[in-house]
Amino acid sequence: MAAKIKGIIYIDGKIFPIEKAQVPVMDHGFLYGDSIYETFRTVGGYPLQLNGHLKRLERSAKAIELKIPYSSDRLCKETLRTARAYWKTFGKKRSFAQSAQDDKDDIYLRIIISRGYGDIGFDPKLCPKPRVIIIAKQYHPSPKTQYEQGITVALVPIIRNAPEAINPNIKSGNYLNNLLAYIEAKKMHADDAVMLNSKGHATELTTSNFFMVKDGTIFTPSVDCGILEGLTRSLILDIAQTNHLKLKETCISKQEMLDADEWFLSSSLRRILPITKCDGRDIGNGKVGPVTQKLIPLFNDAIIECIKKEYQLSDFQYSF
Amino acid sequence: MAAKIKGIIYIDGKIFPIEKAQVPVMDHGFLYGDSIYETFRTVGGYPLQLNGHLKRLERSAKAIELKIPYSSDRLCKETLRTARAYWKTFGKKRSFAQSAQDDKDDIYLRIIISRGYGDIGFDPKLCPKPRVIIIAKQYHPSPKTQYEQGITVALVPIIRNAPEAINPNIKSGNYLNNLLAYIEAKKMHADDAVMLNSKGHATELTTSNFFMVKDGTIFTPSVDCGILEGLTRSLILDIAQTNHLKLKETCISKQEMLDADEWFLSSSLRRILPITKCDGRDIGNGKVGPVTQKLIPLFNDAIIECIKKEYQLSDFQYSF
Repeated sequence: MAAKIKGIIYIDGKIFPIEKAQVPVMDHGFLYGDSIYETFRTVGGYPLQLNGHLKRLERSAKAIELKIPYSSDRLCKETLRTARAYWKTFGKKRSFAQSAQDDKDDIYLRIIISRGYGDIGFDPKLCPKPRVIIIAKQYHPSPKTQYEQGITVALVPIIRNAPEAINPNIKSGNYLNNLLAYIEAKKMHADDAVMLNSKGHATELTTSNFFMVKDGTIFTPSVDCGILEGLTRSLILDIAQTNHLKLKETCISKQEMLDADEWFLSSSLRRILPITKCDGRDIGNGKVGPVTQKLIPLFNDAIIECIKKEYQLSDFQYSF
Repeated sequence: MAAKIKGIIYIDGKIFPIEKAQVPVMDHGFLYGDSIYETFRTVGGYPLQLNGHLKRLERSAKAIELKIPYSSDRLCKETLRTARAYWKTFGKKRSFAQSAQDDKDDIYLRIIISRGYGDIGFDPKLCPKPRVIIIAKQYHPSPKTQYEQGITVALVPIIRNAPEAINPNIKSGNYLNNLLAYIEAKKMHADDAVMLNSKGHATELTTSNFFMVKDGTIFTPSVDCGILEGLTRSLILDIAQTNHLKLKETCISKQEMLDADEWFLSSSLRRILPITKCDGRDIGNGKVGPVTQKLIPLFNDAIIECIKKEYQLSDFQYSF
């Protein structure tokens, strides 16, 4: 038996218990992975960077010629409605979890737009009605020890999809490339995988962006290396600029990676998480480095500011 | 409304009308395209190359570390049971369509094994129970005019997935690469797309293998160019050997493609289908060439032999 999942799922206007939510076998999202999605979390009950995620969803939709059946405004409303339904189902009385003071009351959200029901074939006209799905489930923060000690990664032989084949900047239901990389990393007893591109340059982890620090400068693969332009990544770029930290978006070779002083990842669900070992060897001195340590609180503050700005709150307290 | 589909679907032991067959949203086949499949047709009611397809399904399963919950023998039996249920539902009394004399009584079959239900994440352990799905639906043969005049294709800018990223030899639910190529081909007013690899060598069409003829020799991309090793392709290799036709598996550049005399595709559903135009220009003289014309009846005869051998029939008549 699969472990029980605490959550609910919205499908085309109706909300279901997570284990009862179903889609047709003939939905092309199931047959071909022909879908797009966005994943994010709430912070104190507020969906983080919701507008940014909805904009990126639109960009992914355009890239695969999929029409999102709702306006951005409606999609936003239905996401909030699904979040409220989650809290109602699982015992929270408040409409937003404004009184949530830390991670434990927050939730994981995933919006999926699938191509919809249609006969076998690639013509988008076979599926006249794309499907809107919103998953709201318990948010599981990464363990505190991972923030304190860093995670371990493996540099796997699986390369990231080429932008000319399937652009990693399209967030789609085709995830086998990342999944195979993850399976390789697990075989190498690592927590996650770092993937290179066909030129041997760093791209990203299986569900997060890659950063490294060398001699006080932060480096991250540029978008043309074949990565997803993460919203958390963009926030780090902004923070670096505001705080006069040196940051370069560039191509990073394997040797440059291994010579770096610090590594970390960024993701909507895990924020900034240090990486202290690769293929069993220490990155730098094997401890969370000073630049990463400096960035983490700056980043957490930036999230609070994001929430205050997006939801027009004059006061908002939260502890990560 | 999507067009009505004449078919039924088997899921884990139960048979449903095609439009009622559903899988959970939390099936990783839907979330990540984390599934494998095989597609084939019946010929006179007999599933063509069924054992070959089941063997390839096992190979795909192994490549993504997915355990098929049935033995090959059981999967074979359930496929035949699903085919019989289709004929029962749609008015055929016979258990096998032995008296089917042409395409119109035959059916399309697709076996899918999905990772199954589980929480978000890439660890295969999240999904302890992979799901078995068998789609049986009406078979739509390609129009006769396509066999007589050939189809048109476009050489699209989308390149085929690199074997080091997602091996095209794994027949999986990640089909966005092919789908994007198909969409490009349609924009260029072609019937299908031919995809190159990152080195600029021919790979395959969106759901079929590529062949060309130059000065009487048949050429087809070798497996290391990044292709699916089609069962129909293998049959053509056998036929060429038996009939002393020159055939080379090799790398084929774009220029070599354009200089060829004839092109054709091979697929389990479309057999050998001539290609007479690429990007609006004639291949050779723009007509179905002599080698393709010679191969088609040899291939059709080989299919009859396949059926007789696999189902131990002393007599079997069929007209394509």
